[in-house]
Amino acid sequence: MNITRRDLIKASAATTALGAFGGVSAAAEDPLPSWNEGASKKAILDFVHATTDKSSPKFVPREERIAEFDQDGTLWVEQPVYSEVIYCFDHVGALVKEKPELKDREPFKTVLSGDRKAIAQLPLRELFEIVFATQSGMTVEQFKTEVNKWMTTARDPRWKRKYTELVYQPMLEVLRYLRANGYKTYIATGGSAGFVRAYAEATYGIPPEQVNGTTQAFQYGYDKDQRPVLTREPKAVLDNMEAGKIENFWLCYGRRPYAAFGNSSGDDQQMLEYVKAGTGERLSVVVMHDDATREYAYGPAQGLPDTKVGPLSQAMYDMAKSQNWIVISMKNDWRRIFAFET
Amino acid sequence: MNITRRDLIKASAATTALGAFGGVSAAAEDPLPSWNEGASKKAILDFVHATTDKSSPKFVPREERIAEFDQDGTLWVEQPVYSEVIYCFDHVGALVKEKPELKDREPFKTVLSGDRKAIAQLPLRELFEIVFATQSGMTVEQFKTEVNKWMTTARDPRWKRKYTELVYQPMLEVLRYLRANGYKTYIATGGSAGFVRAYAEATYGIPPEQVNGTTQAFQYGYDKDQRPVLTREPKAVLDNMEAGKIENFWLCYGRRPYAAFGNSSGDDQQMLEYVKAGTGERLSVVVMHDDATREYAYGPAQGLPDTKVGPLSQAMYDMAKSQNWIVISMKNDWRRIFAFET
Repeated sequence: MNITRRDLIKASAATTALGAFGGVSAAAEDPLPSWNEGASKKAILDFVHATTDKSSPKFVPREERIAEFDQDGTLWVEQPVYSEVIYCFDHVGALVKEKPELKDREPFKTVLSGDRKAIAQLPLRELFEIVFATQSGMTVEQFKTEVNKWMTTARDPRWKRKYTELVYQPMLEVLRYLRANGYKTYIATGGSAGFVRAYAEATYGIPPEQVNGTTQAFQYGYDKDQRPVLTREPKAVLDNMEAGKIENFWLCYGRRPYAAFGNSSGDDQQMLEYVKAGTGERLSVVVMHDDATREYAYGPAQGLPDTKVGPLSQAMYDMAKSQNWIVISMKNDWRRIFAFET
Repeated sequence: MNITRRDLIKASAATTALGAFGGVSAAAEDPLPSWNEGASKKAILDFVHATTDKSSPKFVPREERIAEFDQDGTLWVEQPVYSEVIYCFDHVGALVKEKPELKDREPFKTVLSGDRKAIAQLPLRELFEIVFATQSGMTVEQFKTEVNKWMTTARDPRWKRKYTELVYQPMLEVLRYLRANGYKTYIATGGSAGFVRAYAEATYGIPPEQVNGTTQAFQYGYDKDQRPVLTREPKAVLDNMEAGKIENFWLCYGRRPYAAFGNSSGDDQQMLEYVKAGTGERLSVVVMHDDATREYAYGPAQGLPDTKVGPLSQAMYDMAKSQNWIVISMKNDWRRIFAFET
């Protein structure tokens, strides 16, 4: 696995810029009311018109309309830590109760210590050991139940809200707008497919069959009543990061998407490049996190320190400009970020 | 990979039984006109009613309605050789032209000799070498184009027809009937996903994203014009046989199907067992090849020699009976097998 989410845990360098709420008010029929008027919004509207208007030379048949979305940092907040990693940390206690021999073993010992600084310095290999250990040994259905249970109780420390409330309202509008125009919306996440599928339908309106992610192995077997079950195993099978996202488009559904939305140099660069390079009209969009007041500001493209969690590198920013991707400024393009904002 | 398609090539032991065309004529509104009246047809109709009638205690929400179909021997003819294997054999010549050093190397030498008996005795490992070699080194799009080109020219030697004409008319009716009742129809094939996706939409009305199969690796890279492309590599990534089919349900879409249709002990037993063991109303159907006149008759369940290509073992037949799967007799249940029959 060629992994660039090298250090999953590191607090973001939050700067103190003022959030801008400017922009004209949305028209009654506006499908993207949380977006300010501007080039980004116009590009999305233009793309949909060009590919769905039958008289357009760029018309795309309905069955080929696929739009891919990265999740962390593109559909919801990823700072300071991916919520899936917090889920895993929250399950280390239960795991150690079951297997007390792990208590004094790294990396479990460090996670149990609660020492945030030490946790932040855990190398990726050890973090993956925690992910595998806490997401294995149960059936696929039990895991889904456990994720959904956690999602109803866990709270983000900054907003004191459920993680599923930290989705970006402007992106929910884009998802709905695309679907209303015959696009199938997919998630391509570097996180675990099973984790995201647990809540994707309720949160994004995206059914499990349209979520692809990094995947652990499964083991076919029988439960105590001799019923066949599938159990999650502590071993990676599919890497859904970088070019892995594209390989898995072809593995799971066999098409090149017409639109892609991402944010991270580590995970999304190849997907955005590949989608944009297709024939006809294609849309590649990168979300730039530049709103330290309303959300977070991070990434070298803005001269900010490299956060490791989903940064936008200068190289990717330059690629976006030279290949005509759309760069969304959360600060300037989004009138509202969360549904709970007044 | 735990493979039981051990010897892909072996002529079927064709017996000479008379085809039975009995059964009442289809009613005007009959969704399955190529089926004779009987327990098999009734079981399919009953399953659809039970799971789609809102007043039924077994009602299944539309988004959960998934029906899985094996391809070879379930949707189309698999005897005496899988058509995908013939495709690969047909491409050995072109491959050797490109790489003359293969000409004198096994298994290429044997395939080029045209000696059917020697070809039939090639071990599986060598056959897989041919599959990988002839399906690699081109982009995913080029492969699709090549498969479709072949499909328009290649002919089955017995019926002198295109392979895509050798689909079972009664199964096409089941596919349409299920879709008309809100089911998404999927293919779970032991063959290559990329091969089947090339023609599945035109042949079965099943889009590429609903075809899962055994999958070779892909390599992300750039063509001579520096455009990003995905190239097929001679290496297996996913095994979609036996329990592999179930693992890939969870890998690709994350649900347990409500209905499954298969025929082969080697490939389909776990899928049929797993689907039938789900909660609520589930349908598992096994196609028994017992019509030597109109198609082929093979498999130990009928006291016939083990053909290696998709046989129905006695153990799987017994499992079908004890677990209430439906066993379709092609001879008795199908009034018509192919659309081209008069």
